[in-house]
Amino acid sequence: MLSTPSVLFVCTTCRAGEEAVEGMPAPGERLAQALAQGNACPDVDVRPTPCLSACTQGCSIALARAGSWTYVYGRLSEADVPEILAGAAAYADSPDGIVPWRQRPVIFRKQSLARIPPLEV
Amino acid sequence: MLSTPSVLFVCTTCRAGEEAVEGMPAPGERLAQALAQGNACPDVDVRPTPCLSACTQGCSIALARAGSWTYVYGRLSEADVPEILAGAAAYADSPDGIVPWRQRPVIFRKQSLARIPPLEV
Repeated sequence: MLSTPSVLFVCTTCRAGEEAVEGMPAPGERLAQALAQGNACPDVDVRPTPCLSACTQGCSIALARAGSWTYVYGRLSEADVPEILAGAAAYADSPDGIVPWRQRPVIFRKQSLARIPPLEV
Repeated sequence: MLSTPSVLFVCTTCRAGEEAVEGMPAPGERLAQALAQGNACPDVDVRPTPCLSACTQGCSIALARAGSWTYVYGRLSEADVPEILAGAAAYADSPDGIVPWRQRPVIFRKQSLARIPPLEV
């Protein structure tokens, strides 16, 4: 484990195609709450965030850590919470953010929106 | 202008739906070369990068800087080079990576794949 925490950004504004209902949390908000409640990894910081600008790709998340690759995933829902948290813990446990392919949850293998290298060369 | 340079990552492996032709650079490689050649902003560092994992979204780029928002854009081609470079220069000139909406090139307004907050709260 590394001393630098990994951040799991969760888009809270995503409606995932659902119509807005007054007083009801958006799908992204529900996903963020479920992830925050379910997270048991001390090296993962679940951070609800308004709009990750991946609006056509359902609920989205991003995994980031200083000096590591950043990964963005989409088309997610509350049903994916256990897999997302397992993937986030594996990310936190990796030295550079790159988790071996077969150790990634299927949703991370199939629902990548983007990855961004660390700024440091 | 800030002293920290902004990085323009360009996916060099993207084929943008084109079939691979031996000896011919992929569309992503051509885009990276055109951006590197055209860039005149000293605060923007064009950095060719293998695979940004946005493979279904044509040629893709990412703009990043320490302490700033990261932006990822897709469905780009060599025809977009002037607009990409103008948008990258505006990004480099912004304090936090957030360029006012109307000052962003149209391709940045319409072809966002994702944005990721800075890690610092």
